[in-house]
Amino acid sequence: MKSSQFLISTLRDSPSDAVISSHQLMMRSGMIRKLGNGLYSYMPIGLRSLRKVEKIIREELDNAGLLEMKPTVIQPGELWKESGRWNTMGAEMLKPQNRGGQDMVVSPTAEEAFTALIREGLSSYKQLPIIAYQINTKYRDEIRPRYGVMRGREFIMMDAYSFDADQKSLDESYDKCAKAYRRIFKRLGLNTISVKADTGAMGGSGSEEFMVESEVGDDTLILCPKCGYAANVEKATCKPDVAVDKDGNPQKPTDKPYEKIPTPDVKTIDDLAAFLKTNTQSFIKTLIYKVTNSSIDLSKVECCKNLKRVQDGDNFYYPESFVAVCIRGDLDVNEAKLCAKLKASEVELAAEEDVVRITTAPVGFAGPVKMVNAPVICDESVSTMHDAVTGGLEKDVHFIHVEPGRDFTPFMTADVRVVVPGDKCPECGETFYSKKGNELGHIFKLGDKYTKSMHVTYLDQSGKPVTPIMGCYGIGVDRTLASIIEGHHDDSGIIWTMSTAPFQVAIVPIKYDGVMKEACDKLYDELTSKGIEVLLDDRNERPGVKFADADLIGYPVRVVIGDKNLPNVEVKLRSEKDASLIPLEEAGAKIVSIVNEELARLNG
Amino acid sequence: MKSSQFLISTLRDSPSDAVISSHQLMMRSGMIRKLGNGLYSYMPIGLRSLRKVEKIIREELDNAGLLEMKPTVIQPGELWKESGRWNTMGAEMLKPQNRGGQDMVVSPTAEEAFTALIREGLSSYKQLPIIAYQINTKYRDEIRPRYGVMRGREFIMMDAYSFDADQKSLDESYDKCAKAYRRIFKRLGLNTISVKADTGAMGGSGSEEFMVESEVGDDTLILCPKCGYAANVEKATCKPDVAVDKDGNPQKPTDKPYEKIPTPDVKTIDDLAAFLKTNTQSFIKTLIYKVTNSSIDLSKVECCKNLKRVQDGDNFYYPESFVAVCIRGDLDVNEAKLCAKLKASEVELAAEEDVVRITTAPVGFAGPVKMVNAPVICDESVSTMHDAVTGGLEKDVHFIHVEPGRDFTPFMTADVRVVVPGDKCPECGETFYSKKGNELGHIFKLGDKYTKSMHVTYLDQSGKPVTPIMGCYGIGVDRTLASIIEGHHDDSGIIWTMSTAPFQVAIVPIKYDGVMKEACDKLYDELTSKGIEVLLDDRNERPGVKFADADLIGYPVRVVIGDKNLPNVEVKLRSEKDASLIPLEEAGAKIVSIVNEELARLNG
Repeated sequence: MKSSQFLISTLRDSPSDAVISSHQLMMRSGMIRKLGNGLYSYMPIGLRSLRKVEKIIREELDNAGLLEMKPTVIQPGELWKESGRWNTMGAEMLKPQNRGGQDMVVSPTAEEAFTALIREGLSSYKQLPIIAYQINTKYRDEIRPRYGVMRGREFIMMDAYSFDADQKSLDESYDKCAKAYRRIFKRLGLNTISVKADTGAMGGSGSEEFMVESEVGDDTLILCPKCGYAANVEKATCKPDVAVDKDGNPQKPTDKPYEKIPTPDVKTIDDLAAFLKTNTQSFIKTLIYKVTNSSIDLSKVECCKNLKRVQDGDNFYYPESFVAVCIRGDLDVNEAKLCAKLKASEVELAAEEDVVRITTAPVGFAGPVKMVNAPVICDESVSTMHDAVTGGLEKDVHFIHVEPGRDFTPFMTADVRVVVPGDKCPECGETFYSKKGNELGHIFKLGDKYTKSMHVTYLDQSGKPVTPIMGCYGIGVDRTLASIIEGHHDDSGIIWTMSTAPFQVAIVPIKYDGVMKEACDKLYDELTSKGIEVLLDDRNERPGVKFADADLIGYPVRVVIGDKNLPNVEVKLRSEKDASLIPLEEAGAKIVSIVNEELARLNG
Repeated sequence: MKSSQFLISTLRDSPSDAVISSHQLMMRSGMIRKLGNGLYSYMPIGLRSLRKVEKIIREELDNAGLLEMKPTVIQPGELWKESGRWNTMGAEMLKPQNRGGQDMVVSPTAEEAFTALIREGLSSYKQLPIIAYQINTKYRDEIRPRYGVMRGREFIMMDAYSFDADQKSLDESYDKCAKAYRRIFKRLGLNTISVKADTGAMGGSGSEEFMVESEVGDDTLILCPKCGYAANVEKATCKPDVAVDKDGNPQKPTDKPYEKIPTPDVKTIDDLAAFLKTNTQSFIKTLIYKVTNSSIDLSKVECCKNLKRVQDGDNFYYPESFVAVCIRGDLDVNEAKLCAKLKASEVELAAEEDVVRITTAPVGFAGPVKMVNAPVICDESVSTMHDAVTGGLEKDVHFIHVEPGRDFTPFMTADVRVVVPGDKCPECGETFYSKKGNELGHIFKLGDKYTKSMHVTYLDQSGKPVTPIMGCYGIGVDRTLASIIEGHHDDSGIIWTMSTAPFQVAIVPIKYDGVMKEACDKLYDELTSKGIEVLLDDRNERPGVKFADADLIGYPVRVVIGDKNLPNVEVKLRSEKDASLIPLEEAGAKIVSIVNEELARLNG
């Protein structure tokens, strides 16, 4: 391709809303242009790299035996009502109505569509397993889209769904995808961190996230330096530790009854620890949370007996409920874990008026003792606490000598703490450290969540109808592309991996004229005839401008052809500092071997 | 690919809503499944053929120098407000609001998006021409989706947009696309009819539709057997003919003043002709139309002076207006032509109450004489009429001896008649015939409609800002695929063209076992190693079932391997009746040459 016939337009400066390298470089190199908030369009040069990422994903999935399909992007809301997610997906789902007033969905994911499509033709166990995938447009109405295509509203996702007869088969399908993912990321030149996690409320029995380290990562990873444990902080657990008193000894039970004490003008737990001359671990911190769409059964909780409960097919949920969450004073509540434990779509700290109503006191005096207006959820850290301090459900009042189990009984005890660096690995006991990361891919054993609610069955060998179980598998294509740039760039621009470069080689003449033009054309023809993708910069620009553009766009190999050097040409790898002079006659063969050896290394 | 590892599930019967062959066969062969009304998903076998159509389109456009991009599918409504189409696109455009309450559009077409994206980087004439395209998801909220993917709501469209400095350059871009289109349809094995048409209200100066003949075509084509004139009936014009009297002589002017006559119980024009002992050509038929979003200037029409008029950027339009359309009694009004002439988004016959209000009479007595409540639009056929009969704007009253020009003055005279077989070609005077057809592609000189309203400029050689002009070019990918089936099938199923078959060859063993299995595997390996796409039917089904599926799905070449024939195998082309026995040893080479020769013929 010649520059004059291609649409390249680079920018000297990146737009002010681009704060991360990949966003800045994709805008500056002209790969993408912004069409709206969170809506990025790929220009020809950007699309070339995007398609290469897609192609590698497709090849590896096809090799693994997955089958590509193409459901529609616009889907009937009916399907989401069947699965029960119509109400629980939240505001990220764009739900237009069609001209007949029917609810539609702009697909944010496609469990429902694949389940419905596979359901239609499924009759016998002989047809299973099926693993089908698509690489297609998705839309999520992110509240704050940012980082360019890293967290846009519209994006391309590869999403795959497996349908298996039994757990063993699901395990095999899952392993197939895991293996394909490792090959995909290797070929793309990405080092991923594998984060295995319990999948909580989703009802699955296994999951693995493929993360890349990134300073601007959306996710915080909790990592063990010894056994390789890696978890998203949203889901990380740690080895339970025993609550200690101010001297560092395990807390001891007390026989004293709990007692009211006045605590005027004491605002924080640290203040309270100083006031009572104790440590923060002696406090049971109590937080009131508003819970949306919880589907745990609260019917036995006195204060929840009249709570609005919605039946939705086989499922039910409480559109709104409140809980009092207790945790040791030095710890924080992990809302993602809490949300999962409550099988809810969202949890958030309750508004002041709700706190006042539930605790019968101003904010700051919540506690589990005598709590009658909300079920008490205890973090596991409370289990080893004794002789504790809690809020007194009254202004300027706390209780001391509180014994969990004696003075209050939690409705549920669960692990809802935020794990931090310094906590211990639950597997080997080593001390955790932490890194920021971005999730590129996810594999997930779903179980029968969708096949059950959407009534999918097959006939087993004995002719009995059985519900198949599913796995789901996703890769964010755009953010994978952006992550390659995040991991491969310098101050001058992108340093493409050979497998994802828009063009593998740039030929840059000092001037596209006379003998230089002849040399350029000769090398261009030689390389393209060997299947190498070459961009020939035939523009009438100063050499400095062309060099800067080549560095910014980041072609892996750059060949400079100048009349001073001829019959030698200068060959330079984008990833290296120094160039070498090679006779034009030998340049073609040399470059072909550079490109193919690097591709072989990535594909190997 | 082996059947057991592929998701094929054929149906004996087609669903009752499938009334055309391609829809029936796509459903029965398992290419597509329905996800909702007008929403069809491609299953693995269908997607293979769809991708082949896309690939051929992509290759030919790339060869022609077009550049692929990928705008988002969800687009900001702002862009459509800029171009002025937000209000005029009608109910086919799905317009969800995002969580911030901003208007969004699910792209039904992408003039606005491409114009905005190209605008951003355009500065100099040196960058022009640019022809960019996408192959991407579109959505149109069809009021009555039908015929499967032929007229679905969601579909894949290739849409290209050219940006040129001047008319000469636009002509070149247009010709480039026209040439690429001809190659595309040839390679796909489709015979297209080229329909050139004046583009009316769209403001363009040239267009060409690529149609395929189809009994269930949406379009009626008016064709000249002599000079090749071909036009969509929506736009077809004919050689004007002179209005004649009942003796077949040109109508003669009359000096008599027009005169009221009673016409009780006369319901139709034929009744009236009998009653007045004259011919239908002597009547001026007058129809009241409701017009939506007309942008012709009605400010000089007395009854329209207070009509609501909306200013929208540089444009204006009347959200609702009414016109009285006059046409010779034996002709019909072509609403598409009328709509174009009125620069409107829609025209429809006025409701009874509006007719009564405008004509001050019951339905059936409209006429142009003394018409004061709506502007009179005359078809050109009225121009040669004399001594005519019209409605009297009063119950059971007509006027006779009406002289157009003397007794009424039209606001506008335009060609709005329906052209029918038997009318004469405007080019050569030959008699027209007619066919049904489906539009697969369209190329269109747009002019500056979008670049002007969206303020796109480039600097010309003298540094002066100039508005570029555009062309737009579309191919409906799904309906192209369906049209291949419409044109290539028999009672047993699809007969794929070699370039679009999901697999080029099916190997069908009588039983996949023993020596037959060995022979199958050997031939499969030989063919796939030569790049042939083979489906090996390894299912444990009766031979009859496998043969019927192979015929239904329509693989171009079928090889039957049975122990009775071995070491010979039976090779049969789907398009031919008879099979031939060939030694297994020779079958591979023979089939490779069949496939490659046919591909070469299509690509040649």
